Amino acid sequence: MGNIFADRMSTVHKSFIREILKVTEDPEIISFAGGLPNPASFPVKAVSDAAIKVLKESGESALQYSTTEGHYPLRQYISERYAKKGVEVTPENIMIISGSQQGLDLIAKIMIDKGDKILVERPTYLAALQSFGMFQPEFRSVTLNEDGVDTAMLEKELNENRIKLFYSVPNFQNPTGITYSRQKREEVARIMQSHDTIFVEDNPYGEIRFMGEDQPSMKTYLKEKTILLGSFSKIVSPGMRLGWICAEKDIMDKLVTAKQASDLHTNYFTQRVVYQYLIDNDVESHIQMIRGLYKKQRDCMVSMIEKYFPGDVKITRPEGGMFIWATLPEGISSMELFDIAIKEKVAFVPGRAFFADGTGDNTMRLNYSSSSEDRIEEGVKRLGLSIERLLAN
Amino acid sequence: MGNIFADRMSTVHKSFIREILKVTEDPEIISFAGGLPNPASFPVKAVSDAAIKVLKESGESALQYSTTEGHYPLRQYISERYAKKGVEVTPENIMIISGSQQGLDLIAKIMIDKGDKILVERPTYLAALQSFGMFQPEFRSVTLNEDGVDTAMLEKELNENRIKLFYSVPNFQNPTGITYSRQKREEVARIMQSHDTIFVEDNPYGEIRFMGEDQPSMKTYLKEKTILLGSFSKIVSPGMRLGWICAEKDIMDKLVTAKQASDLHTNYFTQRVVYQYLIDNDVESHIQMIRGLYKKQRDCMVSMIEKYFPGDVKITRPEGGMFIWATLPEGISSMELFDIAIKEKVAFVPGRAFFADGTGDNTMRLNYSSSSEDRIEEGVKRLGLSIERLLAN
Repeated sequence: MGNIFADRMSTVHKSFIREILKVTEDPEIISFAGGLPNPASFPVKAVSDAAIKVLKESGESALQYSTTEGHYPLRQYISERYAKKGVEVTPENIMIISGSQQGLDLIAKIMIDKGDKILVERPTYLAALQSFGMFQPEFRSVTLNEDGVDTAMLEKELNENRIKLFYSVPNFQNPTGITYSRQKREEVARIMQSHDTIFVEDNPYGEIRFMGEDQPSMKTYLKEKTILLGSFSKIVSPGMRLGWICAEKDIMDKLVTAKQASDLHTNYFTQRVVYQYLIDNDVESHIQMIRGLYKKQRDCMVSMIEKYFPGDVKITRPEGGMFIWATLPEGISSMELFDIAIKEKVAFVPGRAFFADGTGDNTMRLNYSSSSEDRIEEGVKRLGLSIERLLAN
Repeated sequence: MGNIFADRMSTVHKSFIREILKVTEDPEIISFAGGLPNPASFPVKAVSDAAIKVLKESGESALQYSTTEGHYPLRQYISERYAKKGVEVTPENIMIISGSQQGLDLIAKIMIDKGDKILVERPTYLAALQSFGMFQPEFRSVTLNEDGVDTAMLEKELNENRIKLFYSVPNFQNPTGITYSRQKREEVARIMQSHDTIFVEDNPYGEIRFMGEDQPSMKTYLKEKTILLGSFSKIVSPGMRLGWICAEKDIMDKLVTAKQASDLHTNYFTQRVVYQYLIDNDVESHIQMIRGLYKKQRDCMVSMIEKYFPGDVKITRPEGGMFIWATLPEGISSMELFDIAIKEKVAFVPGRAFFADGTGDNTMRLNYSSSSEDRIEEGVKRLGLSIERLLAN
C-alpha cells in the first residue's frame, strides 16, 4: 500500500515518557518517571457506594445516551466551586470532557490551522505538545522563571507575532512544579489585555496546594479570553477520565460542536457516579487528606535531595502538585544520566521531552506522589550516586 | 476579538438531529426522531454487581491511570468473539475507545489531509459526516441500494479518484436499516482489492440481528485494508461510551498515537466494569432478549406503516438494528412534512441530513427502538395523516 496516512502523522511521535515507562516496568527499579497520583488517595469505598446508589435510583437513565455538554448538576457543582474562588461562571460555561487532556484536543480542533503560531511555556506539559501538535501549529515558547513566565519575552512574542493561544499551567506546573506569583499573574494579564490571544489555563493540580496561598485564576483578570481546564483526576480518580472545560459562550459553542464530533459525550454513568460521590461526601476533608499525603512525600524528596545530590544541582521547591524539577550543571546531559541511573535501578524523565525547541538537555523531572518515603530515600540516594558518577567523567 | 477559530469550524455545523431533538422534548410528541436504544435492554442490576466487585477486588487499580490501548482482558474477549465469527485478529489489533464514534475521529486524524477524497454511502451516518468533516475532506458518495452499495458506481469512483477511505455501515445501516448481501460483499471486496483505499466497517448494530442470517465481515475478505469499529452501546449501555477499533499493526500504531493525544486512554473503571459484566453473565441470552424486544417493535412499526401510510410511500424492512427508512413520492419534501407532523405531535428525522451531497429531500428516518407498541401505532397513524395532508396539497 502507498502512504495512506495524513501529513500530520509524520511529525507526531509516540510519547517519549510512554517509552520510558516501559523500561521502568521492572519492579526493582524505583521510578520517579511516571506521573501517577498516589492510589491511597482514591476514595474506593465511597465511589462504590455512589455507583450502587446511582444504578439503584436511576439506572436506566445513567446508562442511556446523554447530552454533549454533560450532566447539568455536575456542571452546576463545578461552577459553584469556581464562584467560591472568585471565578464568575454559569453551568452553561462548563462542559464535561473525557479528562482535561481532551480539552487540549478540542481547543486545538476549534482554533488551530496548520502553521498558526501558539505559545507554550519552556518547559511545558509534554502531552500538550502532542495534542496541539496533531494540528500542526508553529510552537513558540517563553522561558518559565521561578515565579512564572518571563513577561518581557511574553510581551515581545505577542507584539511580534500573531499568536492564537498561550498555553499555561500556572499552578504547580508539570514538569517543573512552578507556580505563578500574584504579581506575575497581574503582569501577564496586563500584557495580554491588548492582544487577541486566548489564555489557556490548565489547572489539574490546583486543589493540591499543601503550602502557601491560593492565587487567583487568570480568568478573574481576563474573563473573555481565558479558557479553563479542570480535572477530577487528582481529587477523585484519574482512571475515570473526567474533567471539564470552562469558556465563554462564543468559544463554548464551537467546543460543543467539536466534542460532539469527537465522541458525542463523556461517559454519563461516570458523570453520575462522581456527582453522587461529590454530594454525598465531605470532599474538602478528602482533598485535605491528599494534600497531607503529598506534602509528606514532597518534603521527603526535597530533604533527601539536599542530603544526597551534589550541591550544584538546582531544584524547584513546589508548593503543591506532584513534581520536582532538577537542573544539572550546564553541559551535563540528563539523557546520559538516565542510562547510568537505570543501571542503578532508579528512573526519572529527562527534561528535553518537555521543551518545544529541543533544548533543556541538563534538566529532569522527578515525581514524588507515587513512591513511599522509603523508596524516595533509596531512589534519591541512587540518583545522587549516579549524578556524582556522571560528573566525575 | 478577531476571528480566533480554525478554518475547519466554518464548514462544520451543530448536528441537525440535535436541533430536532430539542423540538421533540415536549412529552406529548411521539418521537421517532431519536436513535436511543430501549432502556429496558440495559442490564442495570448486573452492571451494579460488576461495579461492586471490581471496586472491592481491585479498586485502586481500577481508579488509576491505565494504558492507551485499553484493558487487555477486554481486548482479548473482543478478539475471541471476532474469532467465532471468522475474523482472525489478536488482542493487539484492538484498542478500546470512548464509543465507536471516537473511532471516526481517530481514523480521520491519522488519515485525512484537507482536500483528501473519501467515500461514503448515500445516505450515510450523519455523525460520520461531522467527525470526518472536521478534517476537511472532499466527500464523495455512492448510492445505497436495497442489498448494499451500487458496485458499478463504487468501481467508477475508485478508478477515477484517489480515495483514501470508504466508510460503510454494512449491517442495518443508520439511517436506512439496509444490510449488504453476501454477494454484494464479495463484489465490493473484488473491486477494492486492486486499490489502496481503506474500508472502514462501522458495525454498531451487528449483534442486533432479529431475522435472516449473519453476513461475513469485510475484514474476512480485505484483512489488511479493513478497519472495524464495534460498540457496547447497543448490547450493554450507550451512556458508558465504550467501543473498540480493530486494525492491522501499521494502522494501529498510528491510531494509538492519535488516541493518546486525544484523551490518553478510555475510562478504565468502566472498562473493568463492563469486562466483569461480560464474564459474569450470560451475554448471549441478554443479546437474545434485546433482539426479541427490537423485533417486536420493528414488526409493529412495519405493520402500522402498511396500515396507515399511503401506498406510494416506500419503506425498508430491516433485519436488525433500530431504523426504518421511508421514501415519499418524488418531489415531496420531508422537511415540509416535518412541520405538519410536529403540529400532529409526531416527529422523525428528515432524510436530507444524511446525504453528503444535499439530496434526499423526499426521505425520512424512523426509529422504533425507543417507543412502546402503543406509541408506535399512534405515532404512525398521526404520521400517515400528516403525509396524506401534504400529498393533498
